Amino acid sequence: MKPLSECRVAVIGLGLMGASLCMDLKRRNLCREVRGVTRNFSTILRAFHEDAVDLATTDLSSGVAGADVVILSTPVRAVVTMLGTLESILWPGTIVMDMGSTKAEICEAMDRLPPRVQPIGGHPMTGKETAGYASAECGLYEGAPWVLTPLPRTSTETVELASELAQAIGAFPITMEPVRHDRLVAAISHLPYLLASGLVHTVNDSGASDAAVWDLAAGGFRDTSRVAASDTQMFLDILMTNRDAVLAQLDTLEGHLTELKTLLADKNEDALRTKLSCSQARRAAWQPNRGAFASQTND
Amino acid sequence: MKPLSECRVAVIGLGLMGASLCMDLKRRNLCREVRGVTRNFSTILRAFHEDAVDLATTDLSSGVAGADVVILSTPVRAVVTMLGTLESILWPGTIVMDMGSTKAEICEAMDRLPPRVQPIGGHPMTGKETAGYASAECGLYEGAPWVLTPLPRTSTETVELASELAQAIGAFPITMEPVRHDRLVAAISHLPYLLASGLVHTVNDSGASDAAVWDLAAGGFRDTSRVAASDTQMFLDILMTNRDAVLAQLDTLEGHLTELKTLLADKNEDALRTKLSCSQARRAAWQPNRGAFASQTND
Repeated sequence: MKPLSECRVAVIGLGLMGASLCMDLKRRNLCREVRGVTRNFSTILRAFHEDAVDLATTDLSSGVAGADVVILSTPVRAVVTMLGTLESILWPGTIVMDMGSTKAEICEAMDRLPPRVQPIGGHPMTGKETAGYASAECGLYEGAPWVLTPLPRTSTETVELASELAQAIGAFPITMEPVRHDRLVAAISHLPYLLASGLVHTVNDSGASDAAVWDLAAGGFRDTSRVAASDTQMFLDILMTNRDAVLAQLDTLEGHLTELKTLLADKNEDALRTKLSCSQARRAAWQPNRGAFASQTND
Repeated sequence: MKPLSECRVAVIGLGLMGASLCMDLKRRNLCREVRGVTRNFSTILRAFHEDAVDLATTDLSSGVAGADVVILSTPVRAVVTMLGTLESILWPGTIVMDMGSTKAEICEAMDRLPPRVQPIGGHPMTGKETAGYASAECGLYEGAPWVLTPLPRTSTETVELASELAQAIGAFPITMEPVRHDRLVAAISHLPYLLASGLVHTVNDSGASDAAVWDLAAGGFRDTSRVAASDTQMFLDILMTNRDAVLAQLDTLEGHLTELKTLLADKNEDALRTKLSCSQARRAAWQPNRGAFASQTND
């Protein structure tokens, strides 16, 4: 198999994730050719102007023609739909990757691709609360975990090329089963999003009777609610394709909130201190992962 | 009344908030003398060494003797206790301020001070999830709202001096009733803290069966859970002195989370989109207040 430096890479979808990937690949000269496929003609002009791509088009067929690697960078359900469309136009030997935020449904759809192509699921654990090409930037993937979810049919060489690509732009690959990925991100990504939405709604209710609440909101509100500003369609796709895992996490969270509420209502200060100290210690000790995968053996 | 530049200022408690205040006052040369009172002798040495104070002591009486302004910078219930102790040793004409995170109980205690002193409640809306002298820094108050809660007995001159002090270190004063302050911060500060604690507990539960959850946790978890690492005693004092308002906010939040959960469980995508779009728009439009107080007229 070709090394990344000799590959033509076609990125489908030039939003935050896809365009940032193009910028890294192109400006660091990591592959033979960087192509962008987008429905938005003005994005094509901008991507050319900013030297984010070698070639950009609104035409899917010509975008993927002769590409060695095709990377789908759209909301999850658009990835699933796109895989159906790509089925008939992918060249033999093409590696098909994606950057969708849930993996089970996407990997099932990937498994329906014809045997001549090599699919592998992926999810770089980074992002921003702002979306679209305008938010894209070089270095977005620096230091981020990039989960790879190979299918049983995925060759070792394909896993290696996907890993090489992730590492080339500063991310570190972590390989795991799609279902395990979805269960874990329900807790650390999808649940925080719903919490943030609930918090914004709650403050908004306060604001309806006293708008000064928005004037006092500072760093605590800012950080706790940040992800609520994320792209709605992206998160709808995530929630609808990871429903059971997200609902399970919501149940667990509700249990903890109910416990905190009861302890406070009962003025049970000792038990409240114990519970708050526990989360304090856990959070204070946590550091974002920067390359080690402590739990690889669980895979 | 003296301007701030001619005042001796005694700060009681040299944790994050108190020590940062001392550093700003001392290094910017904003008052005649900066004194620090702390129970911790090693903090005294460090504060001297780092030129954060003119004078530091573990002895409360000598610390406040002759001070024009005494600022209490301890957890809320320690402020209330300290006010009782100070009662007999404060000199006539002393202005007594505080930086506690809830205001109703503190202002009630302040009202019990003898008529010879001038009390005013205060709460700078800034902080960090790390506590103690070691976390203190110059400029912590830059751009932060600083709520002032004068009592009926508080003179205009005292409000003006407190405002001058807040503005001198880059904060902007907002004046309101103590109970109104407590109701508003329950939504934008105390609720986010409990949410963050609940989130950390939930992820911890996930981690018990699959430790890889900690390896995947990235920016969304980091920000949504940040305040859970805050000082436990500080937040216990906050929760116990603002119980009713916090419980009311928890109820409202639970309602929103239940609604989100039901919409997801029922696959009611249209209604889910509407609800998520609403919080998306609200959060994306919000900017931290940097000096305007849009709702001052509600006061």
